[in-house]
Amino acid sequence: MRFLLILLLSLPLGALAAEEVDPSPQTPEAIQLAQDYMAALTNRNYSQLAQYYDRESVLTDRMAGKSITGRRDILAFLRRVHTYTQEYYFNSDHLFYKGSRVVMIGNYYYKARGDLFGYPGQSITFALPGVTTLKLDLENRRIEEHIDFLDYATMEDQLSSHPSLSVP
Amino acid sequence: MRFLLILLLSLPLGALAAEEVDPSPQTPEAIQLAQDYMAALTNRNYSQLAQYYDRESVLTDRMAGKSITGRRDILAFLRRVHTYTQEYYFNSDHLFYKGSRVVMIGNYYYKARGDLFGYPGQSITFALPGVTTLKLDLENRRIEEHIDFLDYATMEDQLSSHPSLSVP
Repeated sequence: MRFLLILLLSLPLGALAAEEVDPSPQTPEAIQLAQDYMAALTNRNYSQLAQYYDRESVLTDRMAGKSITGRRDILAFLRRVHTYTQEYYFNSDHLFYKGSRVVMIGNYYYKARGDLFGYPGQSITFALPGVTTLKLDLENRRIEEHIDFLDYATMEDQLSSHPSLSVP
Repeated sequence: MRFLLILLLSLPLGALAAEEVDPSPQTPEAIQLAQDYMAALTNRNYSQLAQYYDRESVLTDRMAGKSITGRRDILAFLRRVHTYTQEYYFNSDHLFYKGSRVVMIGNYYYKARGDLFGYPGQSITFALPGVTTLKLDLENRRIEEHIDFLDYATMEDQLSSHPSLSVP
């Protein structure tokens, strides 16, 4: 995380973009695009993230019954959601794809300011297990559809029954 | 599997239906319905399965780009798909729900006649990892939407590179 931050601060944007776009020879194009997108998302690099959305892009949180269409609204939503986020990454247990569809099963890990969760002045860490599915536009390197199926109950169990998870 | 078969053969249908409908006190209604449905599906008990669908029910295999609407067409499709299936069950690694939506992450296990896969006269066994999501009509105990995200590449790897998996 710290390494990525240093990388972000020390590289000119063009060089970073070139680095991220360049796929390793073994990685299928769909997987590479999905990973680049997930890196931009979890790094909360909104200027980079903006390049993956267009007016028709749809972000859906299926278990929360929430769906947002278009770059502008998606970015505004993500900025709001991550107001208190200090670190954020996704660890994939199982990733597969077919054509332009990618499925990632794993955990989102958060370190966040505890204010909203009843731990003011503290940081809390928790995992949010679930599935993220992407429908890609490979030609234009865009995300047509991003659907999350997230296990909020498991996240809430960590927040309520394990206050020891909080980090001062 | 054998136990279930004996159960199916030895119980009158009414008793079986009552048994399946009765939820254990700890199991949330949505999970119970999902499990009953998955049992009917993997037991290929089509008369029982018919009760979970109506004209609006949708079965989607997202990675295959296939979607079928309505009880009649869904049942015809499932019967065709399982022509060569000898055993079939789902093992859930992680199951969660919110309201009427259930997400099941795990593996489908198959034992099938090898004819279609280049092993005539043999049985083959393989696992198909993936995610099944259900949108339930809890009041009427119906499946409004069943969407699969299945890792066919992993299944195909087993069929092509591990012929030792085949059972005479």
